[in-house]
Amino acid sequence: MASIFTKIIRGEIPCYKIAENEHFFAFLDIHPAAPGHTLVVPKLEIDYYFDIPDDLLVQMQLFSKRIALAQKQALACERVGVVVAGFEVPHAHIHLIPSQAMSDMNFANKLQFSAEQMQAIAQKIQTYL
Amino acid sequence: MASIFTKIIRGEIPCYKIAENEHFFAFLDIHPAAPGHTLVVPKLEIDYYFDIPDDLLVQMQLFSKRIALAQKQALACERVGVVVAGFEVPHAHIHLIPSQAMSDMNFANKLQFSAEQMQAIAQKIQTYL
Repeated sequence: MASIFTKIIRGEIPCYKIAENEHFFAFLDIHPAAPGHTLVVPKLEIDYYFDIPDDLLVQMQLFSKRIALAQKQALACERVGVVVAGFEVPHAHIHLIPSQAMSDMNFANKLQFSAEQMQAIAQKIQTYL
Repeated sequence: MASIFTKIIRGEIPCYKIAENEHFFAFLDIHPAAPGHTLVVPKLEIDYYFDIPDDLLVQMQLFSKRIALAQKQALACERVGVVVAGFEVPHAHIHLIPSQAMSDMNFANKLQFSAEQMQAIAQKIQTYL
């Protein structure tokens, strides 16, 4: 069965999309630890991050860097934190979390934004891509 | 002034070393969130992770993957988590945390091991490199 991320990539589940290329898809986390918290997912459905083949892992890192640089400009954060955990969805993903302090990287935060706010955040990040 | 990580790389501060090559150095975190928690540091002293030049960022990811594969074999963990935060030491570093569950990736854990235990963990990881 397709993972929830594959369904998002296919457009079967709506999302606030940030960017996409041949191999990767980036969209806002709907339970953000901080505003602009983004997930980067390979289109190839691989469960464990370090099972991703080297060439794709390398491209995923550069794709993520591009998003992170845009997040930093759009959201004026101190730095963009990176987390790869993978205990919830069996489809590898990188969390990119715009942070002012270590406490912004706490997954227990689960901030709530309206659809309009999420759309505005996504558009602002896209402006800097 | 040299960062604490540069002092570790130079051997001025002792560590439980895991691996080293021309550009990177890996050693056990002395306040591990989980057994075998390792830090990967570029020898080039750059503060912010996403300021690392593309070619070095790519090599750092592949170096980290090699360590992570060895950690998973040595410690029989479910997966190796990745965290880049950077709010404490102004020298970019990747945390590689052998995890059985999301709770193992909590930096508040700060486990304590004896010098003998740390040395044994480091040697076990090195066996699989």
